[in-house]
Amino acid sequence: MISEKMMQLGKKRSVIREIFEYSKKRKAEIGAENVFDFSIGNPSVAAPETVKNVMIDLLANTDPVALHGYTSAQGDAGVRAAIAKDIAEEFDVTVDPNLIYMTCGAAASLTVSLHAICLPGDEVIALAPFFPEYRVFVEKAGASLRVVPTLDGSFQMDFDAIAAAINEKTKAIIINSPNNPTGVIFPEADIAKLGELLRAKEAELGTEIYLITDEPYRKLVYGGLHVAYVPKHYARTLVCYSYSKALSLPGERIGYILVSPDMPAAGDVYAAICGAGRALGFVCAPSLLQYTVAKCLRDTADVSVYAANRALLCDSLRKMGYQVTEPDGAFYLFVKAAEADAYAFCDRAKQFELLLVPSDDFGCPGYVRIAYCVETETIRRALPAFEKLMETYR
Amino acid sequence: MISEKMMQLGKKRSVIREIFEYSKKRKAEIGAENVFDFSIGNPSVAAPETVKNVMIDLLANTDPVALHGYTSAQGDAGVRAAIAKDIAEEFDVTVDPNLIYMTCGAAASLTVSLHAICLPGDEVIALAPFFPEYRVFVEKAGASLRVVPTLDGSFQMDFDAIAAAINEKTKAIIINSPNNPTGVIFPEADIAKLGELLRAKEAELGTEIYLITDEPYRKLVYGGLHVAYVPKHYARTLVCYSYSKALSLPGERIGYILVSPDMPAAGDVYAAICGAGRALGFVCAPSLLQYTVAKCLRDTADVSVYAANRALLCDSLRKMGYQVTEPDGAFYLFVKAAEADAYAFCDRAKQFELLLVPSDDFGCPGYVRIAYCVETETIRRALPAFEKLMETYR
Repeated sequence: MISEKMMQLGKKRSVIREIFEYSKKRKAEIGAENVFDFSIGNPSVAAPETVKNVMIDLLANTDPVALHGYTSAQGDAGVRAAIAKDIAEEFDVTVDPNLIYMTCGAAASLTVSLHAICLPGDEVIALAPFFPEYRVFVEKAGASLRVVPTLDGSFQMDFDAIAAAINEKTKAIIINSPNNPTGVIFPEADIAKLGELLRAKEAELGTEIYLITDEPYRKLVYGGLHVAYVPKHYARTLVCYSYSKALSLPGERIGYILVSPDMPAAGDVYAAICGAGRALGFVCAPSLLQYTVAKCLRDTADVSVYAANRALLCDSLRKMGYQVTEPDGAFYLFVKAAEADAYAFCDRAKQFELLLVPSDDFGCPGYVRIAYCVETETIRRALPAFEKLMETYR
Repeated sequence: MISEKMMQLGKKRSVIREIFEYSKKRKAEIGAENVFDFSIGNPSVAAPETVKNVMIDLLANTDPVALHGYTSAQGDAGVRAAIAKDIAEEFDVTVDPNLIYMTCGAAASLTVSLHAICLPGDEVIALAPFFPEYRVFVEKAGASLRVVPTLDGSFQMDFDAIAAAINEKTKAIIINSPNNPTGVIFPEADIAKLGELLRAKEAELGTEIYLITDEPYRKLVYGGLHVAYVPKHYARTLVCYSYSKALSLPGERIGYILVSPDMPAAGDVYAAICGAGRALGFVCAPSLLQYTVAKCLRDTADVSVYAANRALLCDSLRKMGYQVTEPDGAFYLFVKAAEADAYAFCDRAKQFELLLVPSDDFGCPGYVRIAYCVETETIRRALPAFEKLMETYR
């Protein structure tokens, strides 16, 4: 009599959350230091000191009625102006603060965007491997997910495959760069090429196709690499941002949706976003967090820890014989499982207290995701377990 | 091509939000002190000092990785245990912390509950006058709203009308006591009688009917009145709570859903709630706020200000000839408009810089809602304007 679909979603949990819960149980059993949990993208590096200082200062010196009161549904005007100015300066573009909508983090950015634009029967394209919750979000919005693989090994966009997947039902394509789970960044030239392809398909089919760019990892990049500003290359772009990873605030739920001012009927799309946020029950993004991020726009958590972890893991695992894709950003390593069935591989890893995420739900079987947002010491101590695991396959 | 329905929702705004935005504009034009804005339920009393101290202490003395990290999707286990213990003690009942789900406030409590239980074609009953967003939330969850009037003048439950409205499509009834917009509290005897009616109807129709009790104002009560603990009287109850009003934290978005442990298949319903929260993109309730409310469970903002406002307004308006329903809780006064058309009445009030909310969207035309969560001085200075407004009708 209740929603069977919601019940199953609640019972099943995502595979990541499932391991996260197992990890808590296992740590209680054998001690936290003996479990090597690489399952969840919970930043291990503290939020920057500035965040703490700004929050304490706001709490100590702001009228609490203003600080904790409702903001406008789309977010405080001053906060949106600060964010718009920052993006405009960083990328040398025009940003309209009245086309920014503050959200409760990246997941909310995605669900609100999808409910704003999707109609029953629509299709939304995701490029595999992709964050598994995309499927949940897209289906709840009444659309269906069409999975398009990326190029084997490089995980870069396969334009022929994307072109073949687009049809008159295609409402949107979601990209995620730096990518979860591979850490791959799409080069600017490929973003430009994607823009061209989408414009051509719109013209050919007489439809509108939205480009949803899910960017929680935009500021977590290694080797000084450049992440393209997607709206520069395609007008019908919705940027879904979150401060969770860059500022190490995943539990606080704060992010935004940016509607490109170049988008045709941008005001209508923005109104639909406001309407969807309202109908889903978001009211406004947490006010203290809105005011906080507006004062920490150029801050990030100490990314050097992730860089060190990445180097240590990539080098060590390669030496052991693992097949590793070197990540350019985010804090995930995508590693080929040593047998065809990634679930079986993860089960065997568990015997060595290694908690890895099988890649099947990412739409790309045969791999595991290692979230290396952990203390470097944890990686160091986990290396013998990785070695022993590989030995069982020799 | 986008969702017309979401776009209209975003463009129209709620009538309350519309006035809220007009108020900001008008205040900028003629000075905030000259606008008497009674439109929005934004608490005027500061959050208790304890809230500030707890938040600063958490920020200063907790590992930021733990403080700002993801909690379990249903909320931190310690937080849920503390809330369960508090409710159990306050009402002398059994509460299962594993049947509490932390939310981003009352609106989220409602949308997550509705998406968990509603199927297409379902009907949800609301008792007029009711908070207008109920309609938006119910329709987005795929159900339709059936409005049942309360008793004329007292705004108490009309059991004959409720009984007549229940049919095989009825999935839930939403009650809200203390009520927005009337401030009326349903006596415990009436809650018990409602429970009996719902059980009888379930037996008669062979269906399941959920009682959703929306309780953001539970702790805002005058004259020592008692608010019933609804699950005592009906097993299939979902309590939707928010700390917004009691702790003056409306912008922070923190609340919970409590599934009665006596409910048949409570675990399945709770799973559906977890699934709905996940699919709508909530991930978890803001972590700092979760830890904060768990340490402020018996605190409330200084309700004496609202009590003083209520007395001043009720007395003064009655003397001027307004027909007033004395509120028992919350911070709203429901007043009969001096002409049949509440919109016309509100327009005329605007000429005196009085911003009131017409009752039509509350499902009960001919009244206005006065949110008296303002400074007492504002009411004092507004009284001549109320007098002048009434004069125009003499």
